[in-house]
Amino acid sequence: MKTAFKRGSEINFKNLQLRELAINEIKVKVEACGICGTDLHNDPDVADKELPFGHEIAGTVIEAGKSVLNVKVGQKVVLDSATPCGTCDYCRNAQQELCVKIKSFWGTRTFGFAEEMIAPAICAIPRGDMPPDIAALSEPLGVAIDLVRLAEVNINSNVLLMGPGPIGLMALALVKHMGVHKIFMSAFAEEKTRVEAARKFGADVIIDPSKTPLADYDFGCKIDRVLVTTPPPTLADAVAACCQGKIKGGIISFIGIGFGENAYCRFNANDFHFKKLQLRASFASPALFGAQALQYLREGVVDGQALVSHRFPLSRLPEAMKTAADRTKAVKVIVMPDDVFKSANVS
Amino acid sequence: MKTAFKRGSEINFKNLQLRELAINEIKVKVEACGICGTDLHNDPDVADKELPFGHEIAGTVIEAGKSVLNVKVGQKVVLDSATPCGTCDYCRNAQQELCVKIKSFWGTRTFGFAEEMIAPAICAIPRGDMPPDIAALSEPLGVAIDLVRLAEVNINSNVLLMGPGPIGLMALALVKHMGVHKIFMSAFAEEKTRVEAARKFGADVIIDPSKTPLADYDFGCKIDRVLVTTPPPTLADAVAACCQGKIKGGIISFIGIGFGENAYCRFNANDFHFKKLQLRASFASPALFGAQALQYLREGVVDGQALVSHRFPLSRLPEAMKTAADRTKAVKVIVMPDDVFKSANVS
Amino acid sequence: MKTAFKRGSEINFKNLQLRELAINEIKVKVEACGICGTDLHNDPDVADKELPFGHEIAGTVIEAGKSVLNVKVGQKVVLDSATPCGTCDYCRNAQQELCVKIKSFWGTRTFGFAEEMIAPAICAIPRGDMPPDIAALSEPLGVAIDLVRLAEVNINSNVLLMGPGPIGLMALALVKHMGVHKIFMSAFAEEKTRVEAARKFGADVIIDPSKTPLADYDFGCKIDRVLVTTPPPTLADAVAACCQGKIKGGIISFIGIGFGENAYCRFNANDFHFKKLQLRASFASPALFGAQALQYLREGVVDGQALVSHRFPLSRLPEAMKTAADRTKAVKVIVMPDDVFKSANVS
Amino acid sequence: MKTAFKRGSEINFKNLQLRELAINEIKVKVEACGICGTDLHNDPDVADKELPFGHEIAGTVIEAGKSVLNVKVGQKVVLDSATPCGTCDYCRNAQQELCVKIKSFWGTRTFGFAEEMIAPAICAIPRGDMPPDIAALSEPLGVAIDLVRLAEVNINSNVLLMGPGPIGLMALALVKHMGVHKIFMSAFAEEKTRVEAARKFGADVIIDPSKTPLADYDFGCKIDRVLVTTPPPTLADAVAACCQGKIKGGIISFIGIGFGENAYCRFNANDFHFKKLQLRASFASPALFGAQALQYLREGVVDGQALVSHRFPLSRLPEAMKTAADRTKAVKVIVMPDDVFKSANVS
Repeated sequence: MKTAFKRGSEINFKNLQLRELAINEIKVKVEACGICGTDLHNDPDVADKELPFGHEIAGTVIEAGKSVLNVKVGQKVVLDSATPCGTCDYCRNAQQELCVKIKSFWGTRTFGFAEEMIAPAICAIPRGDMPPDIAALSEPLGVAIDLVRLAEVNINSNVLLMGPGPIGLMALALVKHMGVHKIFMSAFAEEKTRVEAARKFGADVIIDPSKTPLADYDFGCKIDRVLVTTPPPTLADAVAACCQGKIKGGIISFIGIGFGENAYCRFNANDFHFKKLQLRASFASPALFGAQALQYLREGVVDGQALVSHRFPLSRLPEAMKTAADRTKAVKVIVMPDDVFKSANVS
Repeated sequence: MKTAFKRGSEINFKNLQLRELAINEIKVKVEACGICGTDLHNDPDVADKELPFGHEIAGTVIEAGKSVLNVKVGQKVVLDSATPCGTCDYCRNAQQELCVKIKSFWGTRTFGFAEEMIAPAICAIPRGDMPPDIAALSEPLGVAIDLVRLAEVNINSNVLLMGPGPIGLMALALVKHMGVHKIFMSAFAEEKTRVEAARKFGADVIIDPSKTPLADYDFGCKIDRVLVTTPPPTLADAVAACCQGKIKGGIISFIGIGFGENAYCRFNANDFHFKKLQLRASFASPALFGAQALQYLREGVVDGQALVSHRFPLSRLPEAMKTAADRTKAVKVIVMPDDVFKSANVS
Repeated sequence: MKTAFKRGSEINFKNLQLRELAINEIKVKVEACGICGTDLHNDPDVADKELPFGHEIAGTVIEAGKSVLNVKVGQKVVLDSATPCGTCDYCRNAQQELCVKIKSFWGTRTFGFAEEMIAPAICAIPRGDMPPDIAALSEPLGVAIDLVRLAEVNINSNVLLMGPGPIGLMALALVKHMGVHKIFMSAFAEEKTRVEAARKFGADVIIDPSKTPLADYDFGCKIDRVLVTTPPPTLADAVAACCQGKIKGGIISFIGIGFGENAYCRFNANDFHFKKLQLRASFASPALFGAQALQYLREGVVDGQALVSHRFPLSRLPEAMKTAADRTKAVKVIVMPDDVFKSANVS
Repeated sequence: MKTAFKRGSEINFKNLQLRELAINEIKVKVEACGICGTDLHNDPDVADKELPFGHEIAGTVIEAGKSVLNVKVGQKVVLDSATPCGTCDYCRNAQQELCVKIKSFWGTRTFGFAEEMIAPAICAIPRGDMPPDIAALSEPLGVAIDLVRLAEVNINSNVLLMGPGPIGLMALALVKHMGVHKIFMSAFAEEKTRVEAARKFGADVIIDPSKTPLADYDFGCKIDRVLVTTPPPTLADAVAACCQGKIKGGIISFIGIGFGENAYCRFNANDFHFKKLQLRASFASPALFGAQALQYLREGVVDGQALVSHRFPLSRLPEAMKTAADRTKAVKVIVMPDDVFKSANVS
């Protein structure tokens, strides 16, 4: 069974045999796996390790442990990348979001850029007849749902989205659907495909921060919600955007991590204080909105087709990675095992 | 294995053999089971059926199905009477409280007034070394926690608790601990043990509604939270209590059901409207606060010893039921299999 | 100055001289006043009294007391029908919505079906250049905003709106704008203009409760939000609608009052309990969303033109009232002093 | 009329004549004014300006403008330092906390370290017969209430309070009253009076961060709420305290400002992200809990007497300032005009 491994930016394939399933696990034939921004990062802490990867996964259950009840062999599923355990004290106290015994395929050391993988059955959510390349978007869409939720966006909000990556664009689709007042998105002009998608998804204004730094941009209205998918140091810009004029009460939600000095944020706490701002970290682990994400894709609340810019067969994963890293062209790149890729007749 | 059955108000014992466990089930040696108000009701719909019962359970795991991971044989536990499944769409969308595939020993048709029973393992919560008669209180305490939570009680609240049963008294202990402004409890003077417990637990005022109907009682302050554990028709009194003076915004949370005409509530919707009231149903199914309930008992936030007025061996269940039904004497009555009862040396 | 008076269903005009302004009051030339459902009701308690009326008011400030700072003579305004005082303990404690010293033109005994009236200045909100007949809608729109807010409607909600009156239609426009999942509206087939408006405003399904009682209607999905603008006895239908299938957690918000037996609601509290329902009274006194309501009308979130079905000059108020009472034809009926009516060139 | 002025750390007195009142203003005989930490700071931006100061004020109304209705001459009051206007769009939309036209005595350029001052009447809250030196605490107590509110403290919280100043101690009294799970307070050992007060007010553990940096301290439990009254750079410690163990979901609320580099906070955003933390700025402008603060002082929820460590006559303000700056001795220092000081017979 072909599996991709990554060391630094080098990718290799190996032929592996999967181990036997534990009683509560499933084996999944992978049919699509999206490339996430974190797949492109090279975490210096593991730069010298060869690791399997890929965590935005749709496939079909091909084997199930004896105690598995929630899905069956033959069922088409997506995999939550992190599922609340249901039995820790937090799960027992109506606080699943703080689960301390998260279940994930991460624990199996098998991942999505492979032909097959193993996952705890509890991570599998039936996807009906949704095509795998679209269904694989449900994982990042769950992230976007949490990012939006955390910012308490409402119909009166003027929203600034920082970063036009897939999650930023999904968040855009969501806040547009929710009827917010005005939507600004920051994106570099050269990120053409993403800028185009942002327009299509309903951004009112697109700002190129390389031309006008966000801290200097005149929004012409109160910015009271900022959704940040850019690296930690840009949080200072998010704070500045919420400080224009005689207004208060902005909420900034963010995802995204950085390495080295980029792991730090620094901002003027006086401004933050006098403007009554809030900074809220979104981290979709455990994933809390898998079923909702599938529903939004199914019903077109988020247009999955418009987000998938490229599809590649697994054998061309290195090329897929390069494409995904080129933000002037790619939005979401989906990788499919070669047989699936051929029969899906996509390109 | 001795099991009690109830038909109408008649109680019989049978010797049963428990079936084999399913892979995800546990067998529990019952060590204590509390008598709930619903155990005393005679639901006319099932008046002619002989049914096992008892759902406030502490015991020890004596056998575990092959896939059980969250508890071990020999572990002391309590049983949630209803646990979120973790895999339905609601559980997947951070709304466990709306779970549509609740797991419960109800499904096994085995219950707590017996020497042994079967439960889905997911329902078991370790209780450490807490004595079973106290630990069994965690089930109704979870109900009380939900009742209080739903009313959004805070330190400025003037709280009226309607009904001094075990859940009402537990709710009293909770709101006292939370530092609410003033606490009123309605209780009939003849419910002496309960009235005494209410005083001990910190009620500021106890009102006998047979002497002064709540609708006429002058609270001398705004009543803005009402926690109702009395039957549905009394909700009209809860509404009236929130309508005194020039005040608005009361929240009434309630549990409790009635039969026949007592299943209905009726109140003046104009008053409800002009006073901006809210009526919120608390129903701890699924149970959402099992771990918290155990913690509150362990730390003395709720004084379990003060709530258990009587203990009986299982063989004297009929007498235990009569005692529990006598609200002038009993608060919470706990039933323990005879061997446990003896060795516990309680009375 | 011409003023309309109502006794039972009889309407008379008088020529009155307004008293001198208090220091914090304004005199307003009325330019438009909407007819509200409560204007059509005949409250038996005041059936024999001759009373001025009309509380959905847009006009122009023509005189201002010495201490008035928030508006100026010549400024076009709408009047909040009830404004938080700003100095009672509730207003001081971030709970304006519970204000116990509400300021209103009700206290001046002058109303909107007149050429001029007196109001506390604090009740006046500038309306810019919005036409008075549209701006007058801001008062009921504030009611609709509160009704929707209270139900905690979100993009996943399946919403049932009971009653296609102006407030129900405004609530429909709001929940549509918010991107809710599915919208049902109950309306009698003969309420043609309203049904047409409901379709235009985006209702997915319109149900005639005279053909299929709501309690029997198969919604095909979970109804989890019900917004009730029909009389109190219909709350039982709202409860029933939330009880279909294996679902829980519905929230019912309601406005609307009844007389005599119609002031009461009655429903099955067992169902309410087992389904974890909530009933929440919306009462926009004080009005909390006046500025927002004007903004929604200005920006077309709610299409004011589509709601005003008829305009009448003040002198034809009796005919206007009859028209408004005919729910087969009218949605919102606006009354304008004769000179304004002529110069507005409306019909 | 004697008024104190401050330039840098230099204090002078002048004899001033107050101007005539505007129609909606009051003149207040000051009876007590607390020294706030911000009175001790020397803001470099105004280092060369001579400015009046003092904003924690209790006194008696001695003159009232013609439109003043909420208080009368002779009435004992405290002064909110910032009151929502009631008529801006935010106040009109149930968002007083975002008011953009705040009313304050700041606008009159008269302050509390003086014998008399002028304030907008709307800022005055009757204090009944509460002594002025205690009532003056209501201003900082309002700050503490907001700080606690913003952190969503509940009975399960393990709270870390950073800084044992008056606001930190008041916050401690509040969270103790609310029955939180465990309370840690950071304080330097040499701040003896404050440490003693912290013990009296119920802190479970007091940590000297000069001995064990908070980032290294082993709390032995999840810290999920941090209330920060120390300068912005210490926010990194607050973040670190929330990152111990396998826990998530901490909320950090903070007040307090810094000058120069001390205006900035900097922390590891990866940690913040993976732990799902939130940083929320509390800024009690407008003041939102003035009435509640008075009530808590009246009812002993917060023990005012225990907080006032020193009282000085106005003529000894320089000495009072030095005392207040000595954190080894002082908690709250109250200044009273000399005649009031004498007749109050305090020391």
